[in-house]
Amino acid sequence: FVNFLFQIIRKALTEEKQVSTKTSAADLVTETDHFVENLIISVLKEKFPSHRFIAEESTAAGSKCVLTDSPTWIIDPVDGTCNFVHRFPTVAVSIGFAVNKELEFGVIYHCTEERLYTGRRGQGAFCNDKRLQVSKETDISKALILTEIGPKRDPATLKLFLGNIERLLKAQAHGVRVIGSSTLALCHLASGAADAYYQFGLHCWDLAAATVIIREAGGTVIDTSGGPLDLMSCRVIAAGTREMAMFIAQEIQTIHYRRDDEN
Amino acid sequence: FVNFLFQIIRKALTEEKQVSTKTSAADLVTETDHFVENLIISVLKEKFPSHRFIAEESTAAGSKCVLTDSPTWIIDPVDGTCNFVHRFPTVAVSIGFAVNKELEFGVIYHCTEERLYTGRRGQGAFCNDKRLQVSKETDISKALILTEIGPKRDPATLKLFLGNIERLLKAQAHGVRVIGSSTLALCHLASGAADAYYQFGLHCWDLAAATVIIREAGGTVIDTSGGPLDLMSCRVIAAGTREMAMFIAQEIQTIHYRRDDEN
Repeated sequence: FVNFLFQIIRKALTEEKQVSTKTSAADLVTETDHFVENLIISVLKEKFPSHRFIAEESTAAGSKCVLTDSPTWIIDPVDGTCNFVHRFPTVAVSIGFAVNKELEFGVIYHCTEERLYTGRRGQGAFCNDKRLQVSKETDISKALILTEIGPKRDPATLKLFLGNIERLLKAQAHGVRVIGSSTLALCHLASGAADAYYQFGLHCWDLAAATVIIREAGGTVIDTSGGPLDLMSCRVIAAGTREMAMFIAQEIQTIHYRRDDEN
Repeated sequence: FVNFLFQIIRKALTEEKQVSTKTSAADLVTETDHFVENLIISVLKEKFPSHRFIAEESTAAGSKCVLTDSPTWIIDPVDGTCNFVHRFPTVAVSIGFAVNKELEFGVIYHCTEERLYTGRRGQGAFCNDKRLQVSKETDISKALILTEIGPKRDPATLKLFLGNIERLLKAQAHGVRVIGSSTLALCHLASGAADAYYQFGLHCWDLAAATVIIREAGGTVIDTSGGPLDLMSCRVIAAGTREMAMFIAQEIQTIHYRRDDEN
């Protein structure tokens, strides 16, 4: 089934797309997002009829986005939709699973590079068959940092977004990268290829699977305030070390987004 | 030989690295950069003893960077050195060839994804065996734009760098990406995965091979002023269409870097 899903997305990557917008002109959706989401949910529903689902396009269509104690699948059918629309080869499917509000496992597939990232609570994280291990870097002046722009593009948001990059570059970070997929940026973090990731304006479906994978690779996932992660808060810092995460928390300024469960 | 080179780099990607800095704390170099450059030059010299070479690390070590009418190989042994140091999987080898100051062909290898980009004047551009074709987009509000930070990190440079991103996002570009390799960003442009690329502070060895590949894929490569490309000027705009390139030229502000042939 997993292979079948990925074939669909890889095929769709080469085709012309019908693109619509959601919350802003930069918040895109395609027929493939809807199709893949419906496919994943229908297969899982048949196998687990009592389970609940939180998924990107269902939420955009009005489904409530509330995490209960019930077993819940948290799904992003196409992460990096803007990349997908442009055939920029950084696109992933992300599926997380939570019980009693606790993340149990996560699966992320990098569609164009055939890399499957998996993590299960207490059992480690892997890319294909290779065990993942985060970076141990604590010094910002040796750090590669990842972030994403987020859907809001008003002047005040852009100023804060760019100001945060400026602060980190002035703190002598080696570099800042923006690859257009929160989920895959978090996978790079899990594999030790970057030292920190932060973002405002991402969603629980971008974070759920990646959070398990990063924690199982030895990393830290926290709120941008420096407190514990709130999956519904639409903001996150992830890092290889707690020191690096706390440094980022102190440096960056908050960009306000509505919570995922606020409606 | 090409396979041998790529094996060396792929192997080096998994090893601990001895990292030094060049023009700034963000301008990194490793033993692999030197080793690969020496290897490429020694093999080519044996085959073509009369040819000239312009290469990143030889230039850093004091060799003159002047393009004459002689057949000249223009080499970046490891593009994306900062990525390479962090094992961030966006690293390439770039080899261009010019005669009478005209770029004749270019070869770029994406080391972690095993993609070989090639272009030869008048004979098209390819990724592995697939013919490349740039995007035909002329509208900034449907465009994905790529750029890179560049080595200078003083406050005035950062302000200009971030100000340029702000201008393009305010002009409603779908997104801006920063992947950490000029050469591979230019390959994405050649393949139609992005609509424009611009940068200040890159070098002739980042540009030489990619310029042939982009032009052969139907794209435009010009100076940031809107005039013809000057390979030694350390600045560039590349786009799928001339309209898009000229739009970028009008929007962005110049960041001054020393020319490659100034010394």
